[in-house]
Amino acid sequence: MSAVSIQQLCIIGVGLIGGSLARALRQAGVVGEIVGCGRDEAHLQRACELKVIDRYSLDIAEAVRQADMVVVAVPMEAMATVFQALKGNLSANAVITDVGSVKGSAVKAVERVFGAIPVNYVPGHPIAGTEKNGVEASFAELYQGRRVILTPTQTTDMAALERVRQMWQACGAEVLEMPVQHHDEVLAATSHLPHMLAYALVDTLARMDDSQEIFTYAAGGFRDFTRIASSNPQMWHDICLANQAALLDVMRRFSDDLQLLIEAVEAGDSEFLRDTFTRAKQARDAFTAQE
Amino acid sequence: MSAVSIQQLCIIGVGLIGGSLARALRQAGVVGEIVGCGRDEAHLQRACELKVIDRYSLDIAEAVRQADMVVVAVPMEAMATVFQALKGNLSANAVITDVGSVKGSAVKAVERVFGAIPVNYVPGHPIAGTEKNGVEASFAELYQGRRVILTPTQTTDMAALERVRQMWQACGAEVLEMPVQHHDEVLAATSHLPHMLAYALVDTLARMDDSQEIFTYAAGGFRDFTRIASSNPQMWHDICLANQAALLDVMRRFSDDLQLLIEAVEAGDSEFLRDTFTRAKQARDAFTAQE
Repeated sequence: MSAVSIQQLCIIGVGLIGGSLARALRQAGVVGEIVGCGRDEAHLQRACELKVIDRYSLDIAEAVRQADMVVVAVPMEAMATVFQALKGNLSANAVITDVGSVKGSAVKAVERVFGAIPVNYVPGHPIAGTEKNGVEASFAELYQGRRVILTPTQTTDMAALERVRQMWQACGAEVLEMPVQHHDEVLAATSHLPHMLAYALVDTLARMDDSQEIFTYAAGGFRDFTRIASSNPQMWHDICLANQAALLDVMRRFSDDLQLLIEAVEAGDSEFLRDTFTRAKQARDAFTAQE
Repeated sequence: MSAVSIQQLCIIGVGLIGGSLARALRQAGVVGEIVGCGRDEAHLQRACELKVIDRYSLDIAEAVRQADMVVVAVPMEAMATVFQALKGNLSANAVITDVGSVKGSAVKAVERVFGAIPVNYVPGHPIAGTEKNGVEASFAELYQGRRVILTPTQTTDMAALERVRQMWQACGAEVLEMPVQHHDEVLAATSHLPHMLAYALVDTLARMDDSQEIFTYAAGGFRDFTRIASSNPQMWHDICLANQAALLDVMRRFSDDLQLLIEAVEAGDSEFLRDTFTRAKQARDAFTAQE
């Protein structure tokens, strides 16, 4: 594995994800200058103070002009606007990638803006994060041992793909590839659906008459189970709409299965209950053992 | 707070819960002899080797005869049988308590066996545990800082209640009281429902065509979210049936709310999604801040 070398990295959106990437690449010693870009100047100043970025610009066109690697780390809903501002301002050797949780909508946004998907655009998704936000929460080790999924299209340039792969490997991540649609289905099942369930559970309990007391008696398992309900509401709103079809499919599957479970509890169907719980425990234990 | 002093403690069911109680009381120096009782002799021998108990008997009548504190720590479905075997064999000064997750069914089992609820029986529930089972998993610190809920009935002897309270306090637990039915409703919401959702989610995903691959890409949030799906299937089967009415009520509430969320995702109802996620995040953050 040859190490990547980035002369000028431009990070658009210097939050937890973008900030941690900047820190990790700096720590790995594979990046020259890091330019931050965003809409909130105070936030970018803070990123400078924390030495996450070397300098910043509020103007995307200016920020990307000399970068050989551009990482778009903004919320899903802001992507189209960012790509519009990038267009025509990139250097000839620039590679662009993004970190959006839904690849179908990111690729569509790029295609709409550019007319066709640029060969130097590599859609990506680091499967990492915490329920915290912002550059203050960023840290260089966020991607150590985590997976990053790249979803190249049929026209993606192989050299661009290789550079993005090497960039994430330099952060300690394991890099995998899969088709755009498959990525969105897998993430709907393993990430988007669990978030919906955690949000819905906490909201259901919060709206019960004795909700204050209910939360008082919530034990350790509940804390773990609901941790992801502390995630950013706007971000998850965006993900719901961006991955609507795949998310609806798994939500409906789950809802149907839950209905069967409710009927089994009502009927006192011991066999159904034992079988379901046993299958789930086996699958969960097998999944944990893999890691 | 005066310290409890137990001359002979009898633990029926020396697993994670019973074994950890024995270890904690021993460590606190408030117990004389600890007698274990169960059906599996090899298991009881192991508990002796681990010095969790001093001796054991396979015969409940013999095991409890001289005990001044009897703790029933067997699965919900075995309770009636255990209480039947206890009956008529207790010493005059004995206090009995149990650790069942559902208090309504425990109290009913006791009432059926004894004809009326004995005044020296104190229904209890330590809100503690891990997804591991067995005496090997037991440890003295399990109850440190955890809550134990006692649900005395109208006829419960105050001195018996006080002894059980002091026993748990000696283990480092915070002891609270509430009515039987209220306990079962609160636990249905905060513990039993989350377990149902975790089991159902893992089972839904495990039965999808590409389940092997799906679990490969499950990230950290998923591991936390599904930890409780590794719990003992038989125990959770028992809890479902023992707390059927309260569990069905919260499962149906949740299912209705999930249906609304599915409709909102389908309709792209931004306001509904943002409101739900924001309310949930606020409730979850407030709950965490309390602790």
